[in-house]
Amino acid sequence: MKHPNRVATLFGIQYPIIQAGMVWCSGWRLASAVSNQGGLGLIGAGSMYPDVLREHIQKCIKATSKPFGVNVPLLYPDIEALMQVLVEEKVPIVFTSAGSPAKWAPFFKEHKITHVHVVPNVKLARKCEDLGLDAVVCEGFEAGGHNGKDELTTMVLVPQVVDAVSIPVIAAGGIGDGRAIAAALALGADGVQIGSRFAATVESSAHENFKQAVVIADDTATMLTMKEVVPVRLIRNAFYEQVRAAEKSGANPETLKQLLGTRRAKRGIFEGDLDEGELEIGQVAGLIHDIPSVAELFERLLLEYRSSLDQLNKTTF
Amino acid sequence: MKHPNRVATLFGIQYPIIQAGMVWCSGWRLASAVSNQGGLGLIGAGSMYPDVLREHIQKCIKATSKPFGVNVPLLYPDIEALMQVLVEEKVPIVFTSAGSPAKWAPFFKEHKITHVHVVPNVKLARKCEDLGLDAVVCEGFEAGGHNGKDELTTMVLVPQVVDAVSIPVIAAGGIGDGRAIAAALALGADGVQIGSRFAATVESSAHENFKQAVVIADDTATMLTMKEVVPVRLIRNAFYEQVRAAEKSGANPETLKQLLGTRRAKRGIFEGDLDEGELEIGQVAGLIHDIPSVAELFERLLLEYRSSLDQLNKTTF
Repeated sequence: MKHPNRVATLFGIQYPIIQAGMVWCSGWRLASAVSNQGGLGLIGAGSMYPDVLREHIQKCIKATSKPFGVNVPLLYPDIEALMQVLVEEKVPIVFTSAGSPAKWAPFFKEHKITHVHVVPNVKLARKCEDLGLDAVVCEGFEAGGHNGKDELTTMVLVPQVVDAVSIPVIAAGGIGDGRAIAAALALGADGVQIGSRFAATVESSAHENFKQAVVIADDTATMLTMKEVVPVRLIRNAFYEQVRAAEKSGANPETLKQLLGTRRAKRGIFEGDLDEGELEIGQVAGLIHDIPSVAELFERLLLEYRSSLDQLNKTTF
Repeated sequence: MKHPNRVATLFGIQYPIIQAGMVWCSGWRLASAVSNQGGLGLIGAGSMYPDVLREHIQKCIKATSKPFGVNVPLLYPDIEALMQVLVEEKVPIVFTSAGSPAKWAPFFKEHKITHVHVVPNVKLARKCEDLGLDAVVCEGFEAGGHNGKDELTTMVLVPQVVDAVSIPVIAAGGIGDGRAIAAALALGADGVQIGSRFAATVESSAHENFKQAVVIADDTATMLTMKEVVPVRLIRNAFYEQVRAAEKSGANPETLKQLLGTRRAKRGIFEGDLDEGELEIGQVAGLIHDIPSVAELFERLLLEYRSSLDQLNKTTF
């Protein structure tokens, strides 16, 4: 007898596949496309002014009748205004990341918004459960963009969080095909959050240059860097080499912050400057070889997932 | 219809579960216990003089009639003498690691020894296949002890290697329970190599203090360090903090090598000095809560693996 999937039930979606909120990649177009395929699309608020976010939410509502959500990095500068937009526009689901969820948990509860937080270790997962959150995403070291300081990989983080909490657990980091979806569920996760693979789709708002850089990236193309400032995984381009040289010569966090500046991610991901921009993507880029539409990608993910299960069931052992 | 497992077939064993060769942990006692349970036990030659290795091989042959192997780190100083011992004692299976397998591949072929190499990336996996090796182990960033410079995690490394080569692929790094075995196979691996979990068994030759340190280690207990010398993952004890302080103050590789000295791993793992020793273990230590016998552990791994598969098959999706 089949059991219902807890993540699908929680969000009211068909497949427990969530598209991660990603700066400069995941606007209304990507999020609504994912939700229309039966997953959960997230608008990435990290790269949007509050009014821009409002526009994306309104367009997303027009583009899909299915549930969708917004990802809010808690280090967002004008966060009070952003939160107000979420309430006014009646966003049903919010994923928070990069910070402590304690301050905002009662706010989401009050406004009946489903609240999920992204965690890098067991301690914060436990805290999320104690705060009454609806689920956690555990994101491993292999993930693209901003990352925790603990360096726990998806393979070890997921089962430890699954053992530690009773709320649904969503695995993230290194998940780019259906094999990895099956693997994450085998580890005990209830669902997956996929970033990089969706960054390189037709509906992603990233620059074509960036998408192509992801397609040609091989297994060793990325590295987690800036560990003394805000750890971030990116493609080892000219900008990365500058950071690395500065770090090797003993640069302090202040100097590194200056080198980073303010618009690096936009420059790399949205404007397509492959040398001077920050090209945030996960290690799984090495497995990404094309730029499909979200509909094509979903079909493929489901096929791969089922074929991975078939393979598992067929092997004598 | 069930398919035969390629790793089990290659080694002539019942389950595609390999116990990693680990310095100061895996002598004849651990290796033979694993082989007797239907897995593949490996004697870890890294911590043994050639004559000590000979003794372990002879004792292993007496303790089991099943296939077993030896792991040889290719940075071993007196390697010619070591290889001679392998041939003289008719060791059927050798896993090499930490170096290039090119020099020794023809030697193993000539002596009809099954040869497997541990790889950290796709390029070296391809090279192993070109050299005619029988299989590769892909070992992720989360693994304990010595590690590659590429920092690829098991989740992303395994499927990329599976796509790149036709020879059997063994997943390693972060595999400590049956859920992770199922996950590794879902990713496309033919088998798994397990280190840390076997380091904390009754038959492991590690010091009781070390085994207890592994049992109490939580998810964030380890870190990959000494990246500019030889990257190694160990428990963040007093020695680790010394290394970290030296690195932060800009110590060069020579100074770090001096700080490391020569007997740190023995001191930590075999002699149980938890402050000054090198406590090599994987991130999966956070999932290790007891010190079972190998027989108990095998039974548990198989139960967990099958229950993970059942769970996968039961979930609607």
